[in-house]
Amino acid sequence: MAREKYFKPIDGSPPPLRNAITRKVRFDELDPLSIMWHGNYASFFEEARVALGERYGIGYMDFIANNIIIPIKKFHVDYLAPLVFGETYTIWALLHYNPAARLDFEYQIFSKDGALMTTGCTIQMMLDTQKNILLAKPPFLEEFCQKWRNGLVQ
Amino acid sequence: MAREKYFKPIDGSPPPLRNAITRKVRFDELDPLSIMWHGNYASFFEEARVALGERYGIGYMDFIANNIIIPIKKFHVDYLAPLVFGETYTIWALLHYNPAARLDFEYQIFSKDGALMTTGCTIQMMLDTQKNILLAKPPFLEEFCQKWRNGLVQ
Amino acid sequence: MAREKYFKPIDGSPPPLRNAITRKVRFDELDPLSIMWHGNYASFFEEARVALGERYGIGYMDFIANNIIIPIKKFHVDYLAPLVFGETYTIWALLHYNPAARLDFEYQIFSKDGALMTTGCTIQMMLDTQKNILLAKPPFLEEFCQKWRNGLVQ
Amino acid sequence: MAREKYFKPIDGSPPPLRNAITRKVRFDELDPLSIMWHGNYASFFEEARVALGERYGIGYMDFIANNIIIPIKKFHVDYLAPLVFGETYTIWALLHYNPAARLDFEYQIFSKDGALMTTGCTIQMMLDTQKNILLAKPPFLEEFCQKWRNGLVQ
Repeated sequence: MAREKYFKPIDGSPPPLRNAITRKVRFDELDPLSIMWHGNYASFFEEARVALGERYGIGYMDFIANNIIIPIKKFHVDYLAPLVFGETYTIWALLHYNPAARLDFEYQIFSKDGALMTTGCTIQMMLDTQKNILLAKPPFLEEFCQKWRNGLVQ
Repeated sequence: MAREKYFKPIDGSPPPLRNAITRKVRFDELDPLSIMWHGNYASFFEEARVALGERYGIGYMDFIANNIIIPIKKFHVDYLAPLVFGETYTIWALLHYNPAARLDFEYQIFSKDGALMTTGCTIQMMLDTQKNILLAKPPFLEEFCQKWRNGLVQ
Repeated sequence: MAREKYFKPIDGSPPPLRNAITRKVRFDELDPLSIMWHGNYASFFEEARVALGERYGIGYMDFIANNIIIPIKKFHVDYLAPLVFGETYTIWALLHYNPAARLDFEYQIFSKDGALMTTGCTIQMMLDTQKNILLAKPPFLEEFCQKWRNGLVQ
Repeated sequence: MAREKYFKPIDGSPPPLRNAITRKVRFDELDPLSIMWHGNYASFFEEARVALGERYGIGYMDFIANNIIIPIKKFHVDYLAPLVFGETYTIWALLHYNPAARLDFEYQIFSKDGALMTTGCTIQMMLDTQKNILLAKPPFLEEFCQKWRNGLVQ
């Protein structure tokens, strides 16, 4: 696991939640240099983020069931080494604890040999159906975060 | 204009409606062979189809305003010559008249020199909000088609 | 397995080669109707085609190692039912035998319940490094096809 | 023009080069929330970057003609307001002067009403054909930068 670098730890926060997926680079994701086009990493990060959300019951669909959407506010990628055709990579998503009504995700992509290829982050805010920004976490998420702070989330 | 090849003319039908757009091939649309990836033609055809629909008032948004969606039922492409980076192509959409509740589109892509690069077609059906297939055209479209048959659509 | 429908069997041909992959529909593959955008099926078919090619040693990379590229000449999709977010589908690729220097692929997408959602086909031709169309199969492929005809390919 | 925010001005640097394109949001670029999917901004930025490069003779093709590739090292987007279907946006690319062998691009997307919708940046490095990172600018770029410093680039 690479060192985390995008979000400063907030005092008293529980450690980040982590989940990994694997994904192969497909032919249609390559650019003319035969490496993955830089814009396709958004899909890799998103697939890892969605998988973490589903695993913990705090995914897109859980928010939508609570009439909340969670658009991306900030997106960042640092490309360390290129991803190539046919290779399978491991994408870790880490959800960092934040007391505010937002989701702070960090990403790390590793090759099969364990080399760190890419890092990045996204920040999502929460909107209600009238497109107002939520200032506090919705109850279902606050309940989840309480368990998280208490070390009850695996 | 190339010969039309996907839809047999139906007796008594008015000539197809035609509209052209131009579009440049972008870097992210290329594949490792430095030609446009074959899957990206769906976007070229769609942009031409949407432009024709908007021009004649029978586009996505006009159907949605009438609580009808128009999913693609069939999609076909014949690749005659590859599209290349930075070049601008002309994409013609032709809407063929059909007495049934469906949209029969033909497409032709030309290079700047007038060479025919690609042909293709799509067929769309119409669904109401309960996902039932419409058996007859909705009133706003029937009204449009009457003008079309009477030669009143330019 | 659904009935094959795009390529007429050629007398004396061996049965098609078959290979299946599974793939989940991702958020970024959806359209505003929350179903998979019709243009993304090209990627589903390609992933299935690539997997079959790799399994049998007749994939992109095998052709490139022989200085041959295999561009798509024809692409066709019939949409029977929409693919939805988060669901995993099985995509079968079937390579039909053809005595000419071309690749005839058929595709079938099934839901987890075994419902046939999509069918389609592609035809690929073979070009040498000067972009000349090959009139006969390259030796490595002819050798493979001989085994195929003799029932020696599993 | 919005305030520039990603690159600190380097003492004695000439002002950034600027170029704008316009682009419409297409149906296939939307997500299920009917706004442009956050991953598609990479294509908007790239189209603006490519146009600036071509205008000034320092584009992809100019680098390739000098046996240099210019992969993206860093990519960043701040989403201020969503882009919607059918609307045309203006995308400004600004190339900031940097004495090192890298390209520092900033991006600003505006609505027709002049509202700032998105900002972002990319950093590109330069590699030779053996994938070595260039430590100094190649001659054709150094020559261009000299004109730029001397106020001779329009």
